[in-house]
Amino acid sequence: MDDFIIPDLHNMKLPKDLKKLDKDQCDLLCSQIRQILVDTVSKTGGHLASNLGCVELTLAIHRVFDSPKDKIIWDVGHQSYTHKLLTGRLDRFDTLRQEGGLSGFCRPDESPHDAFISGHSSNSVSAGLGIATAMKLKGSKRYTVVVLGDGAMTGGLVYEGLNNAGKSETNLIIILNHNEMSISKNVGSIAKYLSTLRTKQSYHKTKDVVEKTLDKTPLVGKGLIKAIRSSKKAVKNVMLGSTMFEDLGFKFVGPLDGHNIEELENGLKAAKRLRQPVIVHVNTIKGKGYAPAEKNPGEYHGIGSFEVATGNPDVVLPDSFSSVMGEELVKIGENDESICAVTAAMKYGTGLQMFAKRFPERFFDVGIAEEHAVTFCGGLASQGMKPVFAVYSSFLQRGYDELIHDLAICNTHAVICVDRAGIVGDDGETHQGLFDISFLSDMPNTTIYSPASYSELRLCLNEAVNAEYGIRVVRYPRGRNSSCYDLGPACTTYSHIKNGGRILAVSYGRISDNLFKAEEQLNNSGIVFDILKLVKVFPLDQKIVDIFNSYDAVLFFEESYRYGSISEKYAAICSNVVPYAINGFIKQGNVADLLDKCGLSAEKIAERIKEIANG
Amino acid sequence: MDDFIIPDLHNMKLPKDLKKLDKDQCDLLCSQIRQILVDTVSKTGGHLASNLGCVELTLAIHRVFDSPKDKIIWDVGHQSYTHKLLTGRLDRFDTLRQEGGLSGFCRPDESPHDAFISGHSSNSVSAGLGIATAMKLKGSKRYTVVVLGDGAMTGGLVYEGLNNAGKSETNLIIILNHNEMSISKNVGSIAKYLSTLRTKQSYHKTKDVVEKTLDKTPLVGKGLIKAIRSSKKAVKNVMLGSTMFEDLGFKFVGPLDGHNIEELENGLKAAKRLRQPVIVHVNTIKGKGYAPAEKNPGEYHGIGSFEVATGNPDVVLPDSFSSVMGEELVKIGENDESICAVTAAMKYGTGLQMFAKRFPERFFDVGIAEEHAVTFCGGLASQGMKPVFAVYSSFLQRGYDELIHDLAICNTHAVICVDRAGIVGDDGETHQGLFDISFLSDMPNTTIYSPASYSELRLCLNEAVNAEYGIRVVRYPRGRNSSCYDLGPACTTYSHIKNGGRILAVSYGRISDNLFKAEEQLNNSGIVFDILKLVKVFPLDQKIVDIFNSYDAVLFFEESYRYGSISEKYAAICSNVVPYAINGFIKQGNVADLLDKCGLSAEKIAERIKEIANG
Repeated sequence: MDDFIIPDLHNMKLPKDLKKLDKDQCDLLCSQIRQILVDTVSKTGGHLASNLGCVELTLAIHRVFDSPKDKIIWDVGHQSYTHKLLTGRLDRFDTLRQEGGLSGFCRPDESPHDAFISGHSSNSVSAGLGIATAMKLKGSKRYTVVVLGDGAMTGGLVYEGLNNAGKSETNLIIILNHNEMSISKNVGSIAKYLSTLRTKQSYHKTKDVVEKTLDKTPLVGKGLIKAIRSSKKAVKNVMLGSTMFEDLGFKFVGPLDGHNIEELENGLKAAKRLRQPVIVHVNTIKGKGYAPAEKNPGEYHGIGSFEVATGNPDVVLPDSFSSVMGEELVKIGENDESICAVTAAMKYGTGLQMFAKRFPERFFDVGIAEEHAVTFCGGLASQGMKPVFAVYSSFLQRGYDELIHDLAICNTHAVICVDRAGIVGDDGETHQGLFDISFLSDMPNTTIYSPASYSELRLCLNEAVNAEYGIRVVRYPRGRNSSCYDLGPACTTYSHIKNGGRILAVSYGRISDNLFKAEEQLNNSGIVFDILKLVKVFPLDQKIVDIFNSYDAVLFFEESYRYGSISEKYAAICSNVVPYAINGFIKQGNVADLLDKCGLSAEKIAERIKEIANG
Repeated sequence: MDDFIIPDLHNMKLPKDLKKLDKDQCDLLCSQIRQILVDTVSKTGGHLASNLGCVELTLAIHRVFDSPKDKIIWDVGHQSYTHKLLTGRLDRFDTLRQEGGLSGFCRPDESPHDAFISGHSSNSVSAGLGIATAMKLKGSKRYTVVVLGDGAMTGGLVYEGLNNAGKSETNLIIILNHNEMSISKNVGSIAKYLSTLRTKQSYHKTKDVVEKTLDKTPLVGKGLIKAIRSSKKAVKNVMLGSTMFEDLGFKFVGPLDGHNIEELENGLKAAKRLRQPVIVHVNTIKGKGYAPAEKNPGEYHGIGSFEVATGNPDVVLPDSFSSVMGEELVKIGENDESICAVTAAMKYGTGLQMFAKRFPERFFDVGIAEEHAVTFCGGLASQGMKPVFAVYSSFLQRGYDELIHDLAICNTHAVICVDRAGIVGDDGETHQGLFDISFLSDMPNTTIYSPASYSELRLCLNEAVNAEYGIRVVRYPRGRNSSCYDLGPACTTYSHIKNGGRILAVSYGRISDNLFKAEEQLNNSGIVFDILKLVKVFPLDQKIVDIFNSYDAVLFFEESYRYGSISEKYAAICSNVVPYAINGFIKQGNVADLLDKCGLSAEKIAERIKEIANG
């Protein structure tokens, strides 16, 4: 041991030098990495448990494969922190999820080691198959390695990918990182099925025994009887593995201990030798190596900064649009047995845990399956139930066709609570809610509410639930209502504040607040303008058009992508409407800063108004 | 046999009286129904083979269940003709797919026996689960019966539905109608897997034997050896059935002979008794009972009218936008090895069969899996390939999130050929291509071409393929180019025809033609107007804005849904632009009639121009 060298991440050529480490050095490196993860995430916030769970796995992957020549794809990407540390991003790791810093997900424009973008679940197999197919067509013998959590297995896109990948003659290796946790506890039969695979018995040992015996059967039967007698379950497992994956055309390796570097590397090397699509089943423990996270991984999935010793997240939001929606829906559910609440693996994020506790039989967590969630709502509604699907704006994009086909065409009544609408911040371009206004207002039979306060949210939710037909959307931002103005009596239509100005400033949702701030800022400038705060933003309203036409200029500020926006739709009717919306994808950053960049801060709004007022 | 009564569909109470028929009467009825199907579809066009394949199955369902109290859902719905005949729509059956007539798919507003809308594939399990769940919550003991083709099994939405349905405690019965044909020959591992289930051996017999033996094993092993020796495959099948479906939580019944009424009814009654989610596997022969269709079911999937004796479809379209695209892509592929063609089970419909034949290794039919198709293209493109995904407009809706997440965010270069764009006609509201312009132009990093002629289509396709970044969309209508005007030299930008008018009429795609027709019609009225024909319709172009601003009035006629349309986007910038687009969902009908209804015929366009000209 005298020639033992403590590995120093800061002075290694990464990922190359990882291959030079011996087992003890690997173990030491893993604990160093865990320390970095806990220290950093405690300051920056981010996904802790999922990353602590795959430290050894990530190290093993980089020791067995050659990134970026071999392509590594992380589904969702919230488990890619160690990958970032091992591919030359250690020195910038403290900028994680900060404006201009490292993304909390995989970004090809951040590093050549991030082979494909990640953020939305379940796209990795399809992307990996595309990459593996391209390499095959170009005559490359390189590997494509996909790392997939069991949570992502609940999304239909993965299944479409597996259905096509199994029969492909590519060097595609799919690592199923099985920790029995997606964002909230895993749901659905596939989870149950995978758990049966998560068996103490080594799949391979059992399999060899039984296959050999089966082959010999006609000659000697005793062996088989022994195998059966020893464990019926073992046979079942062999057959399980052999159908769900091998009959989809994959070779199956595993289950492997996801915290045993040697076992992992042997398994990955075996998969490499097969040179065909392989599923490698790896069992990991979410939060591994950090007691508080191991004990309560849910809490540490995606968190704000927290205190390392106790591990208590210092950001808890009972005071948020999400929780207000959740509380109000419970109230509504008390008096209306037809209310059903649906979430796609975001029970806690959407505030539906309260409804789930109170009305378990009317609560449905469908897994990461937004398409199913929408169509399921269509089925419920067709029988007179009142489904309420609470979902993040950027994830609802998955249900676009189902919204049109299974709800809008029949003018079916369903409520969609669009959470995380508008700019979300730290999670970047894959998670911003920029498009829901455009794609929902471009759909027939849709009504959209955008409350600016908790009281308006409650009113809108009640009105939406009690409507008789059509898709009723209630959209609201992430986090708490930071409004510091009395916006007058809450309503579900609009508020028109008249100061005798010839200019009208218009907005909806949380941005409305900035109109009032701007008014204060312009107080002494002698510039006078009126304010219109919309709550029901779509369909367009003739009353609103008449108000617009009564002004010289209408400045419409909107926290939404510019094309398909409400301001654009009104501008197409009223020639005096000037839209100020968001001009493209928005990278990660502080919400206030990003709003300012987009020209939606009080200061920027005041500037625009000033320009117009001064002609 | 003297009391044998020939069943008379016209004078039966349907579906009630079906239960009174004996086996001989059922067989007789089935041949009567097949005659009606062939006669009608030969006149109206529609889906023949799929309907001929499930005559007995449909009859059996209506004899075992009580529609509409029990809910019957037909996935896609192109196999629901017999269901329509047996539920009181016989007298109107000759109006199939005609304006104001019966839909070729299921429509709840057409009959209470159509429990849910159908048209887009793979939504039936999710919708059925919603219905079954609602019935359970309301305390009903009724059944929900879903009929699913093996083609629909390639769609991820089905998998999301199965994953949730298996564990539900509902009376949901899913009939897997297995004919080994989706629209084109089935692809993917699931198809292979299902075929292994399509075994001569009766699943149940084998299963009983083996299960009994397994139970007894510790005591007597001989039985098992016998079972194994008799057929290893049998055991495999048991385990197959028991994993893919039973481990998803379903009971499994089948495979049943889909053309044997008694076997079908016994199987369905068995499923009924189980009172839990069941998969019933039924083997059918597509085109059953009509020789030409049996011989070549592909040709008879969705067809125009044809001649009964020979069964030759009288509508074949080598002369169509689809085939011109297909031919041109082969030409491009000859000189560019990076071109890959992708289809979602529409090889023939999109004209890609030529590319498939010439470059099989660069052609990918991914099954009915539009999400995967888009993300797969993202993977291919990330390695320098040039993917071209040819897809029907209304089906591309399924890939909305993937277009944003897996292509647009990274500004990845991929070509989307949007076929069946605009009004499609006979297939109705689920198949009209009304939304592609809105959702694609509301996406950053997207360019949209809408050629009006074959020569423009060729130019646009080449420009799209040779671009360096971004989503390049080429959209074109179903069928042939019926333009009778020389639109001047083909281009990929725009043509501006000046007649010295103060009014400008604008359009793109096939509608442009009607501007010239309108010009003729107004020839003697003294009304003079100029014409602008757009080819690259998005992004918006300052040159176009300048042209618009040089006119008194700009009338923009557009074959697209009004909200999110190009005309609306220009109207938001240019106050003199008046958009004329489509105002909502469009039911089935003749394309020319529907265009006229939407105000897009030459006559209606001429009227609008006249109104404006005469102030």
